[in-house]
Amino acid sequence: MVLNRRGWIATVAALGSAIIAGRAKAAGRGGRKQMVHHVFFWMKTPGRQADVDKLIAGLETLRGIPEIRELRIGVPANTENRSVVDGSYGVSELMVFDTVEDQRRYQDHPIHKRFVETCSGLWERVVVYDSIDV
Amino acid sequence: MVLNRRGWIATVAALGSAIIAGRAKAAGRGGRKQMVHHVFFWMKTPGRQADVDKLIAGLETLRGIPEIRELRIGVPANTENRSVVDGSYGVSELMVFDTVEDQRRYQDHPIHKRFVETCSGLWERVVVYDSIDV
Repeated sequence: MVLNRRGWIATVAALGSAIIAGRAKAAGRGGRKQMVHHVFFWMKTPGRQADVDKLIAGLETLRGIPEIRELRIGVPANTENRSVVDGSYGVSELMVFDTVEDQRRYQDHPIHKRFVETCSGLWERVVVYDSIDV
Repeated sequence: MVLNRRGWIATVAALGSAIIAGRAKAAGRGGRKQMVHHVFFWMKTPGRQADVDKLIAGLETLRGIPEIRELRIGVPANTENRSVVDGSYGVSELMVFDTVEDQRRYQDHPIHKRFVETCSGLWERVVVYDSIDV
């Protein structure tokens, strides 16, 4: 690629804009108030690793839903044992949405419905916390 | 600033690297398994907005702790009323750390200790979920 000086300036300007956009995204919100949807699953058969693996595989399919801005799948971390820490769940799913409306669309999405059909036999109890950024 | 062609190439290369680094950060993990520390506070006097504001102001001070990679402060979102959704808490605090060890350092940090001293009278109950990315 050969660029004249104007071409270089345009390229540098474009790259600069991309960096600024990237930083806004890295900040997690870019000034917008997003919402966090955090779901904790308690397994029907705690300790059965095959079930945990199946649930994690099911949660991975949710990445196909376009409204999800961020998805983290987790298991209890090995932090200090404190009375306030609840580490009794099997798997957690943390999602970020731009709006409450996007979260509703996610609930209704066929991929989500298929996940619930396929995996709901694996868990005994689910607790959901929906929070909006202040 | 006047740059010769070599100077422009170096600038573009540096900007390109910055974008790649920014993208890795935006992805939330950059391939590493981070941990999520999610704390839910139930207020001693639910519905007293001044207390919620004080707690949020206290949580904002935690941004000064260097180990915290991401911090979101939230209140219950106005999502659909489902039996699995627990919207009874007052305020939530969601943090991302690179390691379990960083979370321990955060617990011991003077800013965190000062926050607990200043604000612990505001809440009745705390539940913490620590998850590590799978």
